[in-house]
Amino acid sequence: MISYEELQKHTTRESCWVMVHGKIYDVTDFLDNHPGGVPVILSHSGQDATGIYDAIHSGGFFETLLTPEQHIGIVDPATVPVVEVVKTEDELRVEEARKNIKNINLLINLDDIEEVAHQVLSKIGWSYYRSTADTGSAYDNNFAAFSRYWFRPRVLRPVRDVDTSTTILGIPSSMPVFVSPAAMAKLGHPLGEINITKGSATAGLIQGISSNASCTIDEIAEARQEGQPLIFQLYVNSDHRITEDTLRKIDKLGFKAIMLTVDAPVLGKRELDMKARGLPVRGANNSGDQGTALRAGVANSLGGYFDSNLKWEDLAWIRSITNLPIVIKGVQCVEDVEIALQYGCAGVLLSNHGGRQLDYAPASIDILWEIRQRRPDILDQKKLEVYCDGGFRRGSDVLKALCLGATAVGFGRPFLYANAAYGEEGIVKVAEIMGEEIATGMRLLGVNKISELKPEMVSRLA
Amino acid sequence: MISYEELQKHTTRESCWVMVHGKIYDVTDFLDNHPGGVPVILSHSGQDATGIYDAIHSGGFFETLLTPEQHIGIVDPATVPVVEVVKTEDELRVEEARKNIKNINLLINLDDIEEVAHQVLSKIGWSYYRSTADTGSAYDNNFAAFSRYWFRPRVLRPVRDVDTSTTILGIPSSMPVFVSPAAMAKLGHPLGEINITKGSATAGLIQGISSNASCTIDEIAEARQEGQPLIFQLYVNSDHRITEDTLRKIDKLGFKAIMLTVDAPVLGKRELDMKARGLPVRGANNSGDQGTALRAGVANSLGGYFDSNLKWEDLAWIRSITNLPIVIKGVQCVEDVEIALQYGCAGVLLSNHGGRQLDYAPASIDILWEIRQRRPDILDQKKLEVYCDGGFRRGSDVLKALCLGATAVGFGRPFLYANAAYGEEGIVKVAEIMGEEIATGMRLLGVNKISELKPEMVSRLA
Amino acid sequence: MISYEELQKHTTRESCWVMVHGKIYDVTDFLDNHPGGVPVILSHSGQDATGIYDAIHSGGFFETLLTPEQHIGIVDPATVPVVEVVKTEDELRVEEARKNIKNINLLINLDDIEEVAHQVLSKIGWSYYRSTADTGSAYDNNFAAFSRYWFRPRVLRPVRDVDTSTTILGIPSSMPVFVSPAAMAKLGHPLGEINITKGSATAGLIQGISSNASCTIDEIAEARQEGQPLIFQLYVNSDHRITEDTLRKIDKLGFKAIMLTVDAPVLGKRELDMKARGLPVRGANNSGDQGTALRAGVANSLGGYFDSNLKWEDLAWIRSITNLPIVIKGVQCVEDVEIALQYGCAGVLLSNHGGRQLDYAPASIDILWEIRQRRPDILDQKKLEVYCDGGFRRGSDVLKALCLGATAVGFGRPFLYANAAYGEEGIVKVAEIMGEEIATGMRLLGVNKISELKPEMVSRLA
Amino acid sequence: MISYEELQKHTTRESCWVMVHGKIYDVTDFLDNHPGGVPVILSHSGQDATGIYDAIHSGGFFETLLTPEQHIGIVDPATVPVVEVVKTEDELRVEEARKNIKNINLLINLDDIEEVAHQVLSKIGWSYYRSTADTGSAYDNNFAAFSRYWFRPRVLRPVRDVDTSTTILGIPSSMPVFVSPAAMAKLGHPLGEINITKGSATAGLIQGISSNASCTIDEIAEARQEGQPLIFQLYVNSDHRITEDTLRKIDKLGFKAIMLTVDAPVLGKRELDMKARGLPVRGANNSGDQGTALRAGVANSLGGYFDSNLKWEDLAWIRSITNLPIVIKGVQCVEDVEIALQYGCAGVLLSNHGGRQLDYAPASIDILWEIRQRRPDILDQKKLEVYCDGGFRRGSDVLKALCLGATAVGFGRPFLYANAAYGEEGIVKVAEIMGEEIATGMRLLGVNKISELKPEMVSRLA
Repeated sequence: MISYEELQKHTTRESCWVMVHGKIYDVTDFLDNHPGGVPVILSHSGQDATGIYDAIHSGGFFETLLTPEQHIGIVDPATVPVVEVVKTEDELRVEEARKNIKNINLLINLDDIEEVAHQVLSKIGWSYYRSTADTGSAYDNNFAAFSRYWFRPRVLRPVRDVDTSTTILGIPSSMPVFVSPAAMAKLGHPLGEINITKGSATAGLIQGISSNASCTIDEIAEARQEGQPLIFQLYVNSDHRITEDTLRKIDKLGFKAIMLTVDAPVLGKRELDMKARGLPVRGANNSGDQGTALRAGVANSLGGYFDSNLKWEDLAWIRSITNLPIVIKGVQCVEDVEIALQYGCAGVLLSNHGGRQLDYAPASIDILWEIRQRRPDILDQKKLEVYCDGGFRRGSDVLKALCLGATAVGFGRPFLYANAAYGEEGIVKVAEIMGEEIATGMRLLGVNKISELKPEMVSRLA
Repeated sequence: MISYEELQKHTTRESCWVMVHGKIYDVTDFLDNHPGGVPVILSHSGQDATGIYDAIHSGGFFETLLTPEQHIGIVDPATVPVVEVVKTEDELRVEEARKNIKNINLLINLDDIEEVAHQVLSKIGWSYYRSTADTGSAYDNNFAAFSRYWFRPRVLRPVRDVDTSTTILGIPSSMPVFVSPAAMAKLGHPLGEINITKGSATAGLIQGISSNASCTIDEIAEARQEGQPLIFQLYVNSDHRITEDTLRKIDKLGFKAIMLTVDAPVLGKRELDMKARGLPVRGANNSGDQGTALRAGVANSLGGYFDSNLKWEDLAWIRSITNLPIVIKGVQCVEDVEIALQYGCAGVLLSNHGGRQLDYAPASIDILWEIRQRRPDILDQKKLEVYCDGGFRRGSDVLKALCLGATAVGFGRPFLYANAAYGEEGIVKVAEIMGEEIATGMRLLGVNKISELKPEMVSRLA
Repeated sequence: MISYEELQKHTTRESCWVMVHGKIYDVTDFLDNHPGGVPVILSHSGQDATGIYDAIHSGGFFETLLTPEQHIGIVDPATVPVVEVVKTEDELRVEEARKNIKNINLLINLDDIEEVAHQVLSKIGWSYYRSTADTGSAYDNNFAAFSRYWFRPRVLRPVRDVDTSTTILGIPSSMPVFVSPAAMAKLGHPLGEINITKGSATAGLIQGISSNASCTIDEIAEARQEGQPLIFQLYVNSDHRITEDTLRKIDKLGFKAIMLTVDAPVLGKRELDMKARGLPVRGANNSGDQGTALRAGVANSLGGYFDSNLKWEDLAWIRSITNLPIVIKGVQCVEDVEIALQYGCAGVLLSNHGGRQLDYAPASIDILWEIRQRRPDILDQKKLEVYCDGGFRRGSDVLKALCLGATAVGFGRPFLYANAAYGEEGIVKVAEIMGEEIATGMRLLGVNKISELKPEMVSRLA
Repeated sequence: MISYEELQKHTTRESCWVMVHGKIYDVTDFLDNHPGGVPVILSHSGQDATGIYDAIHSGGFFETLLTPEQHIGIVDPATVPVVEVVKTEDELRVEEARKNIKNINLLINLDDIEEVAHQVLSKIGWSYYRSTADTGSAYDNNFAAFSRYWFRPRVLRPVRDVDTSTTILGIPSSMPVFVSPAAMAKLGHPLGEINITKGSATAGLIQGISSNASCTIDEIAEARQEGQPLIFQLYVNSDHRITEDTLRKIDKLGFKAIMLTVDAPVLGKRELDMKARGLPVRGANNSGDQGTALRAGVANSLGGYFDSNLKWEDLAWIRSITNLPIVIKGVQCVEDVEIALQYGCAGVLLSNHGGRQLDYAPASIDILWEIRQRRPDILDQKKLEVYCDGGFRRGSDVLKALCLGATAVGFGRPFLYANAAYGEEGIVKVAEIMGEEIATGMRLLGVNKISELKPEMVSRLA
């Protein structure tokens, strides 16, 4: 047992201790390996860091990454100062909102869910999820783009036996929708990604797991139902050996594919997140004026380890470790689809990262339109599978992409919002709403099966 | 005479009684035939259901559909509990609004009428009439589409003797406008569709009668003036024998044509209606939390009987029963106009069902433009008649469609709104306003006769 | 001397007397010739009608149109009841606004003037001036259209000696701007069109005089300076003899040209004016419910006499009476420009009547663009002069039209607004602002003379 | 020593004295040479003019331009009336705003800086900086234009070693951004352009110095760091000898190039500035109603001396005096780029003067697009350098221009705003934000070097 006074002495790069759930860890040697950067730990050293630890990591985080020697003891409870916890204004607001949360049965569409999430999420959580890059142009345009595409429905075709099921990379899915990998589900709900995994099982959806998930891969794999398909989203680490370990692990855990994110060699400038100032700044000297430069957005603590020199040739290296099919996530023009094809990729996810990376990055439906104009053969002959994400909120959005040649559509924020508001049940609700909207839309277009959706069923407004 | 206590015992699928206007009916065997679904009746069983019955059905509804045996008696008035009727807030609002309703002579255009209707309609009625599918894109675009078309008027042509009259399917009409069939006129006015029939007679308009009219076909036929033309809008029932009966009936009653609706194999997702939650949910277990999932929109009680496997080949079956000309209602692309032509249809109504069915379904004026570009021969040679509806509110809207080749234009909501606000007199007012706007517009375009309206009088903004 | 009691007895079509400025007129035989229609007089018969007479007519109106016999006497002052004049709320508002009117030197642009006019005009006056047809589409688009045209300025050209002067129909003008004829200037200022005539003289502008001017032609001609050019706007009367008299008169008075309005065979549906309900309805029975149908807009009293069967061939008839050059006002497509050319017209004024006639009538700048695309020869070889009006408020608007080939631009409402707010001084101010904006714009485009403005200096946004 | 009473006697064109910082100057002979016009001085004659002098001029202004004889003495302090300075409401507002100014470290983007500047600038200063021409169309469109251009980013390209540095006219710059010359930095900060010079040195930027700078050329040159590059923006004076002196001076001071402004032969109509009425009107009789016509915007006092007859041939004259490379500032169409090329210019700055000159002048990015369509060879072969300015606020804006072929982009208002709010430190902050946004944007486009930015990385929305 270690006294709290002793703990308080270790607050420097030379000797850095933190206390989590009553245990004391010496993280001095771990500082430089912390995915979230040094300052986040340093600013919580010499004290009880349980709060922030739980907000971002799962219980197994330190157990997995620290050696037994680094766990140096248990705090002497008698020495821990009694801190009167004063809730912040934001915490009180959230508490009240959660008490009065809308009955889930009253939700009609995904916008309803976003509205609830906005109410019950902490300011930091909301700001991280909702944040977009720079002017917000890419995010806003993701939505606006759909208003450029209109249906050309067919009538007097039998549609009683509508079937929304399809396959993605050969994996059966209850509908042409999957869970786009997204970081930090714990910001919204203490069970984090686990809820999404369980909900996806119920709904028959394939889930993409983010490299920055707030639950560990093991925890998520553990939560799977028998045979439930998962895809792993990969950020390649500057230290390729770490990535190799990860790849071997997910292969062994039975993940079905790798979704390699390529639109984030560095993280975008996410202003809402930055202005919420949820965490200490990566790389900043952790002293001085707490009111200004030393705190930054949540994203600031995420992307530091990415290999920003990754190139097409590195796919060979990944293939040397795993035979899992590779989907390139973040492709944004037809030329890169062609290269992905040359490199034997199983699919490409057209995406501007939810409008969180490059300002004025194109909407995926517009990229898809470009491919349809310039390389319809890729789509019509399914030379590789093409997916879209970003701004999809309606069955009609999904159907437009499918008519134009996409195999499936990813939803990111809607699942995070649903998880934040209703946990696992929310995930199922999103799927239920989407399933109904897609089925109704198919019938009103005059089709019974996904394969009957055709390019001539969509026109583009000049 | 049956006691109210006895009535109260019959509230299950096995034994279901309802009381309407003092009469008691055993509707147990009728439950599955109720067009509005089982739960609506069940939830009003064992009690006085006069209120909801009158709101939706005409007096003859039970008389027509139930056997004399199902009418099992009269309630013993002495046993009926005295219920102090407490008006809802919405009822009080409507009452007050009806007292202060605007003088009809002060109405200048159809928007004025919609504004009054919004004031005097119940929340449930307004929500049903005004509701649109999903995002509202199709409804909004119906209006926005007109701003893409501009006139190219001609000057110094004699226009004193302007004449708005025309023919539709060979039937004379005072102007190129007809009443688009629309359900549930009783939600707005206790006399329902009868008002519209009488007003149409005065105005010289052809009326389309909905399969879901809240007055019976007989009542409407009865209200006709000598020789007044009616068209029957048909939803084909899953049980084709029911439809056959209907067809024989309308043939016998002297209806002039059949308008076969093909854009509603299932009903669209009408969110305003859903959120108003006017009626119990079709298919739901009628117990439990009344506050949430068990009530749905009015539309929920309508479409359940539709044959969603109807196909072009079924037109032959219809023709085997009646020789009435067939108009296909809900055509949304030029290819389906071509098929309708092959199948010998008399006309097509380009329509997205007032934006109530498919999200992002095209505006009828845009579909018409497409036909003009790709198959002008169909329009110029009148190979079949082409009509439009959806979002038409102005004489200028009508004239644009006529210039581009339409024979006439249907108005739906405006007549429902006028009926709700002013009854029969409102119908005449709508016709009067339209007649004047069309006549003035024709003169200012430089034409005296409908046949002089030409495609070159309209240009499309790029 | 006639007693007021006697006057009060004559209020029917059979015997109709009115009192104006103490004189009593028997207008029974004049009723059907009243340009404003019968009801307006009838509803003011048997009483002192000085107020409404002055608001619309000039002093000479009755003198000119009635015979001496119809002036039947002077009222006996002793018999006139003392009426306590109670000012209306609107009159009080206007009075207050006029007291606090903005110093004219603080006005920077024409929008500033409109803002002041809105403040100081009576509700009826404002509603008549500002009113537009139906949805307002044509009026709104008149402004929006300018945002489709952008400049392509040239640099390093000498522009010190900029000169805005030009000629219109060979008549010198200080700038390529003229006063578009507009009715009813007295609604804004008691001196009416006289102010505009005097201000135009000062500013070196050519003024168009409306057939519906509230001053008589003689009064206006009288107010001219030596040699000041006026153009007469002609509405042809159903009774062509009246028009012939007018034509002979204006010829004799030295008017320089005739501007024949062809876009108003009937008046448009001017909703703001209608809703203001300034005057009794033409054709209505003048009894009963004063609150509703019996009052209409000012425009209702204007257009009744128009010959709505006028045709191109009638130009020969006009030419048989006068040799004045004829400008066709209200041409709206290139085909009619071609016809005007065939008929030897001196010019055409592209105009949608300030958005007051046909809903969705095109903006004049867009019509001009159409001519430039399809018949550039007409513009480049000046086969006739082409003018524009409608929505012009800025020097840049004028310059766009001139670059594209227009000879000059008419301003209507701005002069009415300026007259209403500041009288003659306001007219000069409008000219001063326009002159400066045009001169600055020319310099910044790189031109010194009007003739140097070229089509390549304007591009159209796709 | 001169008494204040004596000073007060000299307030006419015939004898005009002013007092500045306790010294008395006879400026009678200088009146006509005052760049700001006669009235500004006259209206401050016979009194202590220190306030307005300091707001616009640097300390050396009179020293440089007046002869020693014109400095006629020192005021007798005993005679100077004690004036109780009453601060205006605007001064009090500014004072308060400056006290509570936002911590510079909290600024995230250039809009944040503009917001602060709006708070801390005087109404007159803000109105001068922010003002635009006429309708504001050109200014607004400068921003809107960027939404027509979208990126086509490339992925899986190594971007770790991103480098934003480039050269402009062969001069190294830390990024493809320079300080566009802009007048009157002292309106925002007492040190004026000096702050910008020092901040530019720190940031590695090239600064353009305005002919209307509020610091003298000497002061600015003095403030330079060793070897720091400056460019001189030239307005040619009507009196060419004055311009010749200036050219010789800047040549001698080591300026690197001349930026000849050609879009301002006269100043535009800057309405916000006019309405702020900061200074007496040029050319007005300085007496009478101070409330109205006699005061005008700051711009009114600037442009009077420009040679509005300047032409391409005059470049030869400039070359006869200096060999510095010449950049033409304010080119607005491809034809004038071609002429500049013929005349051997080193570069052109596509610019509409920040939307301050011609209404509806095109945005520079749109002009650049025109050049790319019609003369790509000029851009691809760098036949001359092409720059843009106007409305650039984001790294993405800059990158679009560079992809399309621009060499660099000028920022005007952002530096003025930053100077007003934070002085020198603000200049550095603008550069820091831009540097980061450009670097991140390059990486997300898949490029490491400025030269890798290509036209195919941008598409234009139809």
